[in-house]
Amino acid sequence: MLERIRLESLREKVTTAEDAVKIIKDGMVVGSSGFTKAGDSKAILAALAERGKTENIQVTLMTGASLGHGIDGKLADANVLKKRMPFQADPILRNKINNGEILFIDQHLSESAELLHTKNLQNIDVAVIEAAYIERDGSIVPTTSVGNSVTFAALAKKVIIEINTEVPEEVYGIHDIYQAEDYPYRNVIPIVAPWNKIGRKSIPLDPNKVEAIVFTNKKDSPADITEPDHKTTAIAKHIIEFFENEVQLKRLTDRLLPLQAGIGKVANAVLTGFKDSNFYDLTMFSEVLQDSTFDLIDSGKLSFASASSITVSAECYERVLGNLSKYREKFVLRPQNISNTPGLIRRLGVIAINTAIEFDIYGNVNSTHIGGTKIMNGIGGSGDFARNAYLSIFVTQAASKENKISHVLPMVSHTDHTEHDVDILVTDIGLADLRGLAPRERAQKIIDNCVHPDYKEELQSYFDRACERGGHTPHLLEESFSWHLRFSETGSMKKKTTEEVYN
Amino acid sequence: MLERIRLESLREKVTTAEDAVKIIKDGMVVGSSGFTKAGDSKAILAALAERGKTENIQVTLMTGASLGHGIDGKLADANVLKKRMPFQADPILRNKINNGEILFIDQHLSESAELLHTKNLQNIDVAVIEAAYIERDGSIVPTTSVGNSVTFAALAKKVIIEINTEVPEEVYGIHDIYQAEDYPYRNVIPIVAPWNKIGRKSIPLDPNKVEAIVFTNKKDSPADITEPDHKTTAIAKHIIEFFENEVQLKRLTDRLLPLQAGIGKVANAVLTGFKDSNFYDLTMFSEVLQDSTFDLIDSGKLSFASASSITVSAECYERVLGNLSKYREKFVLRPQNISNTPGLIRRLGVIAINTAIEFDIYGNVNSTHIGGTKIMNGIGGSGDFARNAYLSIFVTQAASKENKISHVLPMVSHTDHTEHDVDILVTDIGLADLRGLAPRERAQKIIDNCVHPDYKEELQSYFDRACERGGHTPHLLEESFSWHLRFSETGSMKKKTTEEVYN
Repeated sequence: MLERIRLESLREKVTTAEDAVKIIKDGMVVGSSGFTKAGDSKAILAALAERGKTENIQVTLMTGASLGHGIDGKLADANVLKKRMPFQADPILRNKINNGEILFIDQHLSESAELLHTKNLQNIDVAVIEAAYIERDGSIVPTTSVGNSVTFAALAKKVIIEINTEVPEEVYGIHDIYQAEDYPYRNVIPIVAPWNKIGRKSIPLDPNKVEAIVFTNKKDSPADITEPDHKTTAIAKHIIEFFENEVQLKRLTDRLLPLQAGIGKVANAVLTGFKDSNFYDLTMFSEVLQDSTFDLIDSGKLSFASASSITVSAECYERVLGNLSKYREKFVLRPQNISNTPGLIRRLGVIAINTAIEFDIYGNVNSTHIGGTKIMNGIGGSGDFARNAYLSIFVTQAASKENKISHVLPMVSHTDHTEHDVDILVTDIGLADLRGLAPRERAQKIIDNCVHPDYKEELQSYFDRACERGGHTPHLLEESFSWHLRFSETGSMKKKTTEEVYN
Repeated sequence: MLERIRLESLREKVTTAEDAVKIIKDGMVVGSSGFTKAGDSKAILAALAERGKTENIQVTLMTGASLGHGIDGKLADANVLKKRMPFQADPILRNKINNGEILFIDQHLSESAELLHTKNLQNIDVAVIEAAYIERDGSIVPTTSVGNSVTFAALAKKVIIEINTEVPEEVYGIHDIYQAEDYPYRNVIPIVAPWNKIGRKSIPLDPNKVEAIVFTNKKDSPADITEPDHKTTAIAKHIIEFFENEVQLKRLTDRLLPLQAGIGKVANAVLTGFKDSNFYDLTMFSEVLQDSTFDLIDSGKLSFASASSITVSAECYERVLGNLSKYREKFVLRPQNISNTPGLIRRLGVIAINTAIEFDIYGNVNSTHIGGTKIMNGIGGSGDFARNAYLSIFVTQAASKENKISHVLPMVSHTDHTEHDVDILVTDIGLADLRGLAPRERAQKIIDNCVHPDYKEELQSYFDRACERGGHTPHLLEESFSWHLRFSETGSMKKKTTEEVYN
């Protein structure tokens, strides 16, 4: 075990999680590794949750993105979290945020590191970083994600390292660690293709800041893999057909352009759909690599994938970490302020596919808030990608909960992505290509192609009546949220009789 | 005059505007120079409007941004415009857009050229470009703006050039003409400081595409310069004090970082405010240079300004174009897909100051739509800058029209900038620094600092009652637009008695 601390002077820092966690004091800002459940702290944050059960301690916790092993829930339950950023996906934490018990800052994932470096956020007191091992120079070889760890290591006053012996030391080389210079001397980020590696293989760290090292041997929480259902399959089919048509029209080649896919079953279904297509030599410039990425690599369809984390099933985790000699030339993990940076997304011409909670007739997208008030997870990287993508695609099911909820609405109850940033909308019903269309044209196309039949007539009626009143973006403000309000009151967005509601 | 056509073979193309405009046919897409009234077509678009009076002809018109000399209104009046993009600021055109007679696409100004190059928009049939003169190689030396002219010249099937003899040939060298490569072979844009010049001095053009050349001698429409009033002065004071405090806290130096300022009197007031400050060696990385820019250059406060156009008063127009030897090392005009590109804005750490129509308690900003439906001008470059800026500042007056309108509201009626992209909000009442704050904290800060006293109590009540119902972003959807609706019904957002409305 100790040989994983190659800088021998650091070996004396090895301790237990219970001991190490004492470094964290009430009121501190903690920066922890972890990006969509990958490469997170398994020991220190768990020990912090334990402390919270018997002690009044509250911290601000920043991470890369969401954490695994229910740790956000345990921290929330133990009342340890005062403020959390930039992303979460935990049901217990979510409830406490929505109750107003815990403050949450929902940030573009490319921006958190920027905000720390520019002192626009409070500085990190203690960084907690999962490592495969520590290099002779004290630098850290991270594990299955990079996230914001480079920034946390650079800016934190004190650092706790968790060496996870479940992760083979052979991960050395799968990371590309690069940080932009400070203002006003910032230079270009010299990436012009997803496979460009421009940085170090380990995270630089001043060894004098290392206050404790703990050993763990726990795998990442596995991703929940659900088989595609008829809706996700339909969405994936619409998208693949759209790409095929773009190739026909010579707007894209059958190599497409680098793909970004948000997390979840639709993204997995779309990527899986490429397996039986004529597309080849595909690449990804994304934030998370899921099972489907490695399946596409195995099938020879995908040449290279760039992201900030690997979030996969237990089977895929073994497959990838057990065959790094096979996969290491096929992917790279970067800091999230590189994987998600606007300039690179535009420079590479990324095709971005992200999930909406709901969208409206003009193509504004709500990715985060149920009923306009209750947060689900957070905006994540969707804004980084959608705004700067070559093509920005959003997907959602047309209706859900026995069709009592329509996901295509007169007006979104919360706006994460404005119509300016949305090119293509897809539901299981169909695809609306909104490029080159003015708002009124967008509305008709969305009503024609995307809305569930149960809601089509009423949505058309809303739009027609709004147009009568006029405006570049016609709306009836007194009625814009009537579907949401009806759902709150009756449990259904439908205007129809009770009989029809339960059909 | 003819010596302004240095490629002699093109001299035979000289003709009248009436003759040249015949190249434009019904249904075509026309791309014209012109960015915020600078460097626009003076002859051809006017001749097109004339044709429209007696002929059924409708075109899609793309420009850099807004046009001068009321030409958008004349074209709209003559029923010549089918579709217009990416920006406008004309009262007649605006009305026709809001009536649904003319379609308008409101685009981030950095994106139009991208969308054309990637074939995500219909291609340009005819480009109309104002020039100072034509070089020996057929390339065009533009005038007071660059806008989208480089893209129009590259992609249009046919080109009409307007040589404006009002503009001295000495403008040669004030432009930096650079275009990114096509996908997937795009390289870095090698600008790391506002003063970097990376391109040619003229717009490349295949002379075979030139179908007509017309001569004009008309100045740009002058900018409307209004003296700062007590509100704009108050807003400017809050912002300058904020900067001074950032310097105190060592988050900024007294050189600040490159400034972007939206068009209008607040931006002018803020820049003017620097004249009597301790800041020095300031720079701009903006889209429009206004009078205040040149005043700051004259006062020695501003070292360099980068933008896509010069939109100034008649006096300042003479001063700048008549003294190019003095000013030419102090500023540069770039294509708008360079001046506004997200990657550069983030790389340079721009401080962005833009104007809001209204903002809400969470810091979402409406920059475009009156009452949620009627467009004013368009989003322009505000989204390019706000999203990627080091600091994103939005300003508006707290209340207007005898305080019958509050510009700080429970919920914006249209979202152009989400709370993720808004750091600082300023009204004449005060400034709210929202960095590092969760939504509920943002709301309280905005209510405390920005709202007009007449509306403070009711806004606090809305927020408090929304919080009781819960949520990460508490709202009462049934009441969110009640202030807008009250204004439609009563002519005032105030809940109070008629007596108080007229106080």
